[in-house]
Amino acid sequence: MSLLPAELIRKKRRGEAHDRGEIEFLVRGFTSGEVPDYQMAAWLMAVCFRSLSSAETAWLTECMIHSGQTLEFKIPGKIAVDKHSTGGVGDKTSLIIAPLTAAAGVPVPMMAGRGLGHTGGTLDKLEAIPGFNVRLNLDAFKKLVVETGTAIIGQTKEICPADLKLYALRDVTATIDSIPLICASIMSKKLAEGVGGLVLDVKFGSGAFMKTAQEAEVLAKTLVEIGRFHGLKITAFLTSMEQPLGRFAGNSVEVQECMDILQGRTCEDGGVDFYADTRELSLRLAAAMLVLGGQAADAQTARATCEELLRSGAAWRKFREICENQGAKPGWELPRAGHEAVVTSPGSGYVAQILCEEVGLAGIELGAGRRRAEDEIDHAAGIEVLVKLGQKVEKGQPLFRLLAGRKDVFAGATARLAKSVRIGPKPPAPVPLIHAQITEQGVFYG
Amino acid sequence: MSLLPAELIRKKRRGEAHDRGEIEFLVRGFTSGEVPDYQMAAWLMAVCFRSLSSAETAWLTECMIHSGQTLEFKIPGKIAVDKHSTGGVGDKTSLIIAPLTAAAGVPVPMMAGRGLGHTGGTLDKLEAIPGFNVRLNLDAFKKLVVETGTAIIGQTKEICPADLKLYALRDVTATIDSIPLICASIMSKKLAEGVGGLVLDVKFGSGAFMKTAQEAEVLAKTLVEIGRFHGLKITAFLTSMEQPLGRFAGNSVEVQECMDILQGRTCEDGGVDFYADTRELSLRLAAAMLVLGGQAADAQTARATCEELLRSGAAWRKFREICENQGAKPGWELPRAGHEAVVTSPGSGYVAQILCEEVGLAGIELGAGRRRAEDEIDHAAGIEVLVKLGQKVEKGQPLFRLLAGRKDVFAGATARLAKSVRIGPKPPAPVPLIHAQITEQGVFYG
Repeated sequence: MSLLPAELIRKKRRGEAHDRGEIEFLVRGFTSGEVPDYQMAAWLMAVCFRSLSSAETAWLTECMIHSGQTLEFKIPGKIAVDKHSTGGVGDKTSLIIAPLTAAAGVPVPMMAGRGLGHTGGTLDKLEAIPGFNVRLNLDAFKKLVVETGTAIIGQTKEICPADLKLYALRDVTATIDSIPLICASIMSKKLAEGVGGLVLDVKFGSGAFMKTAQEAEVLAKTLVEIGRFHGLKITAFLTSMEQPLGRFAGNSVEVQECMDILQGRTCEDGGVDFYADTRELSLRLAAAMLVLGGQAADAQTARATCEELLRSGAAWRKFREICENQGAKPGWELPRAGHEAVVTSPGSGYVAQILCEEVGLAGIELGAGRRRAEDEIDHAAGIEVLVKLGQKVEKGQPLFRLLAGRKDVFAGATARLAKSVRIGPKPPAPVPLIHAQITEQGVFYG
Repeated sequence: MSLLPAELIRKKRRGEAHDRGEIEFLVRGFTSGEVPDYQMAAWLMAVCFRSLSSAETAWLTECMIHSGQTLEFKIPGKIAVDKHSTGGVGDKTSLIIAPLTAAAGVPVPMMAGRGLGHTGGTLDKLEAIPGFNVRLNLDAFKKLVVETGTAIIGQTKEICPADLKLYALRDVTATIDSIPLICASIMSKKLAEGVGGLVLDVKFGSGAFMKTAQEAEVLAKTLVEIGRFHGLKITAFLTSMEQPLGRFAGNSVEVQECMDILQGRTCEDGGVDFYADTRELSLRLAAAMLVLGGQAADAQTARATCEELLRSGAAWRKFREICENQGAKPGWELPRAGHEAVVTSPGSGYVAQILCEEVGLAGIELGAGRRRAEDEIDHAAGIEVLVKLGQKVEKGQPLFRLLAGRKDVFAGATARLAKSVRIGPKPPAPVPLIHAQITEQGVFYG
């Protein structure tokens, strides 16, 4: 019996479950062009309303993996591990984690992304480094991971072409926000990458795609379930994105923050180390990677190893090695913005709320991100975040320092930032940076 | 501000209402090709889940009307009236109603459709008449209506092109079943046709698209509301499609049934007139058209006029005139099938249920309808329905006589028909043919 796309759409519209063959028919047909975009778009929207079961999501993931090439890392005694973040503002941990974990002996084949919506992307950040090449071919990528422990590139056309095509369609049909579709997209890429372990940083809050810890938990659990179904060692952290991570949001400035941390520097301001959260999150995620990679017996030992690798300069040397391996120009320096502006506090009190998405969008106004896929990025543009949630501020005190290559972008960015901070009479209840960890054994809070 | 299709899809996905400009943007953009099929498909599926408000449905209807040409019938002292049926099995009333109503002095500009799914179409039936041309251009159509009172053609490309394109997309994306989309499609065509009055035959039951009287009532009320919004005189009947209408389902055979009724003939079998329901429904619908067309003060007077026009042969003469006007060959005869088969009762008892959709699908197996849009029809193929609901039958007694041009189609059709009738120990509760009438004043049952 031949399957009719319209019948499968109707089935999902009614809330019925597909079998494996039906999912394969849709994904293969769509990738080959036999199932046209308009039928896939209708099916995707039906999925947004009716969702997919765990089994359907697993089959979808599998079909996307097998739509292209898959990598494998056979390194004796080693398990390749990657990290994936669902995206945030100032979320720069990959630049610390990749060299740190690789320095600990865990191979890290990292396929990263570009900025999406108001969130930044690892590839854009790395390209702030003059000469850095994120478009290595798969052979060069594999060779670097095997020989030097890590490399960071973008998704190539050979990896999960079905996901590439499906994602592009979802983007223009308002069908991005669907937990099973998000999960299948993330997991198919990571599984095709050939890792044996995966650490997920699932963010929630005003600067994340998931607004609440509850939503993030559902997403994280589904991701962990798919990973386990495919035999992956996997763990997920639910982390707060109620304020930008660290001191900076942008490209050049975020690379600088990471280089500082890798060199053991802090960023003291008013008795607070503004690098503390970036460092803490990086250490927690890297330590989990060491455990999954079999390089440490438990998180505590792994954490101690990571701290030592930061202290000794081994992680910093690995970072410089990555840059060299991927074409950074000898003696490179990060670009600096020619213009700056400051946004000050409209009143006195405590920083009660930061609309973190607005901070990300202000970064786009400055040129640090893209409005449309074809936009060029100003790598030197960015925002220095001068206050943290709960901090006491006086009227007129600087809240943000803005950096850009052009002065005319400050008006729009300033307007967004001015409305992004709420000053209240008392400090808000503190939100821990790391809300919970989800492992095979369950959910562990704190 | 320019509108983004993806934003509008997202809005509908969230269940928010569009304004008039947004609906216009989508329909115009889709018709011109600026809004691609895949975005429209996602929007349509979101509409299936979230529905449209009365206002949105009215705007959609209006946009579709104005996507093409609109007709107008300015005939002194006359109001042009049409009838629309939501489709059934053996539903042939248009062939009686058009000549009958025109003979009463009401202009009937009838734009009819082809078979859809398991239901038959007026155009396919008329084409069983050798030479009958349903593809007149709009000028010829208008001229015939003005000069002779009626003509029956198919929807041309000039009328509601947006609906034509949207309907084709809905058909392949499982987005047909949506009350606002169905209503906008029906009403835009009828309003563009230039009628001042419209009688709707909204069917429910095993042979209709709406399975229950409740669903049909919702659809009918929405249709009446849109019609009134556009200044149309409109009324809707909710009629039962729990068994095929009349004695025959097919093309040639249905035309023959109508010709018999127009000539005052009955079809007695076991003390029952198998034409009674076709005649009764035609009279009720035609009488309502006379009232809307201002040719009768009330339904009772109108009914008497219609009965007299049947009795006198005036309606029959008008039917022959229509055939002549639209190119039927002089001395034409309906095609007759070369082969026949019989399906008998598997047991003794009462006809407790007829799965009417299966009867329609059996007709398609015989060649009386299409599996795909490009299929050719065997106009002589059809089914003679030998029993009515509640009738007492003996084991082995014929239930259906099948007619076709080829013998090899009988196996599939017989299998469907054998399972379409349930014989029970007692007759089912009788379902009245006409369940209710919906007018501007409300719902009137019986």
